[in-house]
Amino acid sequence: MSSPKRYYEDFEVGDLRETRTYRVTEEEALAFARAYDPQPFHLDAKAAESSFFRKLVISGWQTAAITMRLLIDAREEDGGPLVGSGVDELRWTFPVAPGDELHVRSEVIEKAPWPGGKPRGIVRFRNETFNQDDVLVMTSIANTIAPMRP
Amino acid sequence: MSSPKRYYEDFEVGDLRETRTYRVTEEEALAFARAYDPQPFHLDAKAAESSFFRKLVISGWQTAAITMRLLIDAREEDGGPLVGSGVDELRWTFPVAPGDELHVRSEVIEKAPWPGGKPRGIVRFRNETFNQDDVLVMTSIANTIAPMRP
Repeated sequence: MSSPKRYYEDFEVGDLRETRTYRVTEEEALAFARAYDPQPFHLDAKAAESSFFRKLVISGWQTAAITMRLLIDAREEDGGPLVGSGVDELRWTFPVAPGDELHVRSEVIEKAPWPGGKPRGIVRFRNETFNQDDVLVMTSIANTIAPMRP
Repeated sequence: MSSPKRYYEDFEVGDLRETRTYRVTEEEALAFARAYDPQPFHLDAKAAESSFFRKLVISGWQTAAITMRLLIDAREEDGGPLVGSGVDELRWTFPVAPGDELHVRSEVIEKAPWPGGKPRGIVRFRNETFNQDDVLVMTSIANTIAPMRP
């Protein structure tokens, strides 16, 4: 793997990034649901009508995976890996349906050296995922491991 | 969708469930990584050797998705849907490699009525995902919406 082009020292609290958009097709939604979240409201439009959601919606875990993909693509230009140690306060705030187009806004909200003096730090991002109407569909705080400059 | 067979009232703090196991194949790991987390340490065994992980590992979001699948399958017998409102303190505690076999231990740690008097409640689970050596690979607290008995 190539060395990161962006180090712990390069992140600043307040750094903001907007990603491209990602359109979720019904085919992709059904494939994900069959593999990982085979519940009627993710698999069957008719059955979904009488569910909590009242229509076919994608798995919240697929929204999380798409959010990751958008963040990876936005990070391409820096070449830095995105190694997560964990996520806090992940919330699914609005249903996502097949055909929706998602994008992500990502902001650095905190940074701190890794405990114990290892040459890395934790950078915390608030990631907000929106649909095509700019309705917030998912929010989370991602804890990411960033190497320090050698 | 069929009515849930398990309601808010049926969950008790301390309820514990163990799931079946799920073996992650390299093919499945690469397909997920290509779609949602295309980083060298998820895609290319050779490149992964010089990465943070030192070997090919699966995306943490795939571990989360597999955890969901295992919980769904374990819930089959109850017939109850698993609608999540969010997740707290998700932590990836150990890398998962293709070929690993995962299982989940899920415990009810808290329950509370939904604010505002709606006929539903929040049931909080601590979900722990282990590999074939019983090493904890992921832990999270899942907030799940359960309907109250009519």
